[in-house]
Amino acid sequence: MLRLNYKIIFHFLGLLLLFNGGFMLLSALVSLIYKDGVTSQIFTAGILTLLIGVISMFLTRNHIKEMNKREGYIVVSFGWIIMSLSGTLPYVFTESISNFTNAFFETMSGYTTTGASILNDIEAVPKGVLFWRSTTHWIGGMGIIVLAIAILPLLGIGGMQLFAAEAPGPSADKLHPRITDTAKRLWLIYFGYTVAETLFLKLAGMSFFDAINHSMATVSTGGFSTKNASLAYWNDQPIIQYIVILFMFLAGANFVLSYFAFKGKVQKVIKDEEFKLYFRFILVFSIIAAVIIYFKADHSISTIHHPMVWGRGESAFRHALFQVLTVITTTGFISADYTLWTPFLVVFFFGIMFLGGSAGSTSGGVKVVRHLILIKNGFLEFKRALHPNAILPVRYNTKAISGDIVFNILAFFILYMLSFIVGALVFSMFGIDYTSAVGLSASSLGNIGPALGSFGPVNNYAALPPLAQWWSSFLMLIGRLELFTVLILFTPFFWRNR
Amino acid sequence: MLRLNYKIIFHFLGLLLLFNGGFMLLSALVSLIYKDGVTSQIFTAGILTLLIGVISMFLTRNHIKEMNKREGYIVVSFGWIIMSLSGTLPYVFTESISNFTNAFFETMSGYTTTGASILNDIEAVPKGVLFWRSTTHWIGGMGIIVLAIAILPLLGIGGMQLFAAEAPGPSADKLHPRITDTAKRLWLIYFGYTVAETLFLKLAGMSFFDAINHSMATVSTGGFSTKNASLAYWNDQPIIQYIVILFMFLAGANFVLSYFAFKGKVQKVIKDEEFKLYFRFILVFSIIAAVIIYFKADHSISTIHHPMVWGRGESAFRHALFQVLTVITTTGFISADYTLWTPFLVVFFFGIMFLGGSAGSTSGGVKVVRHLILIKNGFLEFKRALHPNAILPVRYNTKAISGDIVFNILAFFILYMLSFIVGALVFSMFGIDYTSAVGLSASSLGNIGPALGSFGPVNNYAALPPLAQWWSSFLMLIGRLELFTVLILFTPFFWRNR
Ligand SMILES: [K+]
Ligand SMILES: [K+]
Repeated sequence: MLRLNYKIIFHFLGLLLLFNGGFMLLSALVSLIYKDGVTSQIFTAGILTLLIGVISMFLTRNHIKEMNKREGYIVVSFGWIIMSLSGTLPYVFTESISNFTNAFFETMSGYTTTGASILNDIEAVPKGVLFWRSTTHWIGGMGIIVLAIAILPLLGIGGMQLFAAEAPGPSADKLHPRITDTAKRLWLIYFGYTVAETLFLKLAGMSFFDAINHSMATVSTGGFSTKNASLAYWNDQPIIQYIVILFMFLAGANFVLSYFAFKGKVQKVIKDEEFKLYFRFILVFSIIAAVIIYFKADHSISTIHHPMVWGRGESAFRHALFQVLTVITTTGFISADYTLWTPFLVVFFFGIMFLGGSAGSTSGGVKVVRHLILIKNGFLEFKRALHPNAILPVRYNTKAISGDIVFNILAFFILYMLSFIVGALVFSMFGIDYTSAVGLSASSLGNIGPALGSFGPVNNYAALPPLAQWWSSFLMLIGRLELFTVLILFTPFFWRNR
Repeated sequence: MLRLNYKIIFHFLGLLLLFNGGFMLLSALVSLIYKDGVTSQIFTAGILTLLIGVISMFLTRNHIKEMNKREGYIVVSFGWIIMSLSGTLPYVFTESISNFTNAFFETMSGYTTTGASILNDIEAVPKGVLFWRSTTHWIGGMGIIVLAIAILPLLGIGGMQLFAAEAPGPSADKLHPRITDTAKRLWLIYFGYTVAETLFLKLAGMSFFDAINHSMATVSTGGFSTKNASLAYWNDQPIIQYIVILFMFLAGANFVLSYFAFKGKVQKVIKDEEFKLYFRFILVFSIIAAVIIYFKADHSISTIHHPMVWGRGESAFRHALFQVLTVITTTGFISADYTLWTPFLVVFFFGIMFLGGSAGSTSGGVKVVRHLILIKNGFLEFKRALHPNAILPVRYNTKAISGDIVFNILAFFILYMLSFIVGALVFSMFGIDYTSAVGLSASSLGNIGPALGSFGPVNNYAALPPLAQWWSSFLMLIGRLELFTVLILFTPFFWRNR
């Protein structure tokens, strides 16, 4: 058996449970305030989770405070799994979701900030449970930030070394799992954005409950809504949708850049190459989509009502911007069914599913910086073909990047495409048609939420067979943890000593 | 303007026209033998092509016999284009295909060995023209061999240095465009296979004309048939289909290995890592497909007649093997409509479209050796994540491969996927639905032929809008020439001096 510091692993998992249980108690408080009748069930779930966490930490209190890479991988992967497992308790105890497979799918979808849901009637679910549901992806978003800033760069995964300008570089083989000061600062911004969006949405006319839930969903790029129609519920209130658009944009940008902006270092933001490309992608894609929606899309065939309160042009522009942002930032909110807007826009949005937001944000997918490096390297590869002896390093934010990191990113992209193809293949084994299978795979892996075909924007995942729900959960997990973190656990050499 | 040795470029293009014109005269001879009434038109096309070729060579006879990489790229890319342009003459002069866009599509589809056709009634086309049609992909196959063995390794494209065990390594910056002895030997094998398959098919009961045409289609992995039903015409004659299966297998394997086999060096063949993986892919995929066809596929819903002359089990096995080989080797013959066999098999065969046959064969797609290197490198990437300081080179056929070549292959794969996505996007702009657009892109780029949806195995490309035919032709060309060769012409620095 592999020699591992099992005690420190269980100590950390216990700490996570403590954290999770605490948030469950908060949901119980929300339940109490709204008198939804399930307070005691959520409270029990919270206490039980806290208890297991405390016991686990107590039994491992005399652990050796030293952690290597392997233990790091295990803590991260199993951390997400243990959160999802314990996170099912409020659903199961309140019988909001009585089936365990469904409940696990909903929690994994939460903690991975995917936001795919098996709930058929969201509005019938007790408010305390809905708050818990929003909490899962909000916690997930916090986890992603610490992962991107403090953990993955140390593990050296998929070029993550590049992403966090402020993060300490990979210094030694030992992994010090302390949350860095950087992560704490970014959490503050994350929290601040959540508060700000809640206030804005409330001022714009949302109920306080809807405001806070949608705010958590936006900032985490999770995308769970408290309405069956998602953001389309407010299609007659452009201001609400513009607020959501703004915060999707912020949540899909690198949080480190938000930090710089608040420090007044605006130059650092506007000179950041990833930010520039992220901005350009959104701009160009929105214009293309707006033009097509305005001139080509047949609004009459949508199942979603689109009152054009500010005119047809504004409606086309807003829905184009909304759709581009919801897919690029992998939030997965719905304001329209783009699968009904010309065949081109279906393939177009499917393609955008592979972009992802910025690194150091809460968004999923491949991420803009990786595409940037791939594009730059692809261009250089042509130059290298003409001048085989020239040394042409890829440059990012004026610095030359080591070949290892470029290599890393190339391998990440290929593994991503491979996972996507295998993902679609497995879905199709359940008799799911081609378009839906391909859409499900891209959406699960990219932590987006809505897919294509039978699982498109106007559908949910309730019709997905149980085993396919587990497969989707697995894809969400590996996608969220940048593939390598989880998949390395499946390699034989990982479990070999030395 | 870029300083180039334009004279040598035109000299080579003239030589190609000479070659093409000669083959047109051969088709005129076939036309004469079968008295199809279009002999003089094909003859005129041949003479005209020869004339232009002779003039071009005469005007550039005093060229400087020195060629650098840039001129190499231009000769290869424009060579394929000039062949396709002149190749339309027999179609246009005989009015078999009177529309120029259609004719160009059919020739580009030929020379790139794609075998996608816009002909609605193939059997109504004069025999001389059908022979010309088969000739185009047979010439294309010869071109690919010399390209893979003698030219691309020198240009250093997409890891092609690896592929040809016998090919001279990249020695100097100057490109000596002589056809190597190796290429001549491989052409002899190519010719031998064509003769052998013709004889076998004739013996098995095909008419001589059908035999020679299908033989040219198999060995080139082009896949043009002389029957509207393609190979499904012989669904009641398993022996004919097994002969085609055998030669598809040979044509999809590295021709260098065929050469070794004929030299008695069988050890070199069975120890070749790419060959082993190629063989295993076919074996495993055929078994999976056979089991699903046998137990799951509903034969009654196929539009193609499947007489099970040797029983249901043999039929399932044969059609599975046939379909796997026709897609992996990118031949594109049709014996069945796999898009009707369970959703899983649709995604399955779609995935296989990205494999491609072996390097040094006439098949298109990504190629098995690249996948092998990607898999090996992906596996090592996990090891590198655990042991960042270890030096772990990828090994192929026992030799360590330089990082540059691995890098090359990674970049190739990413460019391939990018071309695929952009390809599908552009198709969808013509109002082509998602499944068809994605299928068309994969099929054009991989030089396969049949796609999915409205352009699946039982359809042809006649319904493709004219501009979409040009786009498909472009994708065929870049796919056939390993992307870099053509796309480098679109980079600004290519046209800059120094
Ligand atoms: K999401
Ligand atoms: K083909």
